[in-house]
Amino acid sequence: MPRLTQSALAALIDHTLLKPEATRAEIERLCAEADHFKFATVCVQPYRVAVAADLLKSSSVKVCTVIGFPLGANRAEIKALEAVRACTDGALELDMVINIGAAKDGNWSVIQTEVESIVRAAQERLVKVILETSLLSREEIIRTCQIARDAGAIYVKTSTGFSSGGGATVEAVKLMRETVGEDMGVKASGGVRDLNTLLQMVDAGANRIGTSSGVGIMESGSGTGAY
Amino acid sequence: MPRLTQSALAALIDHTLLKPEATRAEIERLCAEADHFKFATVCVQPYRVAVAADLLKSSSVKVCTVIGFPLGANRAEIKALEAVRACTDGALELDMVINIGAAKDGNWSVIQTEVESIVRAAQERLVKVILETSLLSREEIIRTCQIARDAGAIYVKTSTGFSSGGGATVEAVKLMRETVGEDMGVKASGGVRDLNTLLQMVDAGANRIGTSSGVGIMESGSGTGAY
Repeated sequence: MPRLTQSALAALIDHTLLKPEATRAEIERLCAEADHFKFATVCVQPYRVAVAADLLKSSSVKVCTVIGFPLGANRAEIKALEAVRACTDGALELDMVINIGAAKDGNWSVIQTEVESIVRAAQERLVKVILETSLLSREEIIRTCQIARDAGAIYVKTSTGFSSGGGATVEAVKLMRETVGEDMGVKASGGVRDLNTLLQMVDAGANRIGTSSGVGIMESGSGTGAY
Repeated sequence: MPRLTQSALAALIDHTLLKPEATRAEIERLCAEADHFKFATVCVQPYRVAVAADLLKSSSVKVCTVIGFPLGANRAEIKALEAVRACTDGALELDMVINIGAAKDGNWSVIQTEVESIVRAAQERLVKVILETSLLSREEIIRTCQIARDAGAIYVKTSTGFSSGGGATVEAVKLMRETVGEDMGVKASGGVRDLNTLLQMVDAGANRIGTSSGVGIMESGSGTGAY
């Protein structure tokens, strides 16, 4: 039985290309694919935001970028400046990595300050807070989700996709959804490479998926028109 | 036959802890170890520079940090602002990652601009340019070394240690040393975890080593007083 229409599936996906060696030609292809399938966004590195925004200026597809990525271990003020510049360049969604070391220290005010700074810098644009759940305990995940919600972020997001600890898990997505309720979004990212995994994440509570395999996922259900 | 005195070996090493989940207690231990062995520097994330600088204020060990790390895919102006802030916080050495995508595009003016910006921001402090050699061709390595030298950087450095492509190789270090001659430093980093590998890198032309295994390396020659 179909679970999702093709357009509803596409609208879940942040079509993502974050490897540092990606060329401009690869970014151009990413944007063309995103416009073809009507993905939610393209998710690109800050250096590629301006070109992606230009390529998608007549498209419904938004440009998403990453802040303090992928380690999150820089100063809150630098993350905020990076967010400001990304907005100037045309980003409409900002996926920021929390200061994981500060979380490990129990220094939660650092996390609160940085999320608040980026929400302010984003000026009504959509902010997603990346937890890197593979590095956090259950209690640290809950605490970070609460801080993200209280600071005005719109989504919490599982993973960068660059941690040796791994990416999204059903357990982490469930815990994040339980914690934030229905008032926030939950983005599953890192290791979501096929339709089956994507649907598991949706069942667990995700309403946005970050993946570099969007085209393959769309084509895996092609011909049926539903997923 | 001994190759190096204990103090000469220690003076080669940037004692490195860059994993994002490192705690303040781990940074404190890192600094104490560095002061004990008289390593060249501690290499820590920007968020940890201020505390490391405070802990080492009476030591000969310098504080090194990383800029645009580890992907290098952010805007030159943000890297420069991160460098300024790191200097304010007490960093005396800055290891910056180049914009690898721009290199792949053949857009060398981007690399030139960002290295010049960070050299300017560093105000006489020591700048190392990280190439991430596993992602670059031989020609791209040569070109980046030339740009780094012409822009006033003091070292070229092989790797971040965070790339799935791997870390320092003897071949890359040799090529970098051949390219820059004796006027610049060459730092080998990424995967240097024992004395034997360290000495291979030195033989290939490295005069600084980034490693998280500095204590083990020092202790592997203890009792002899030489390496």
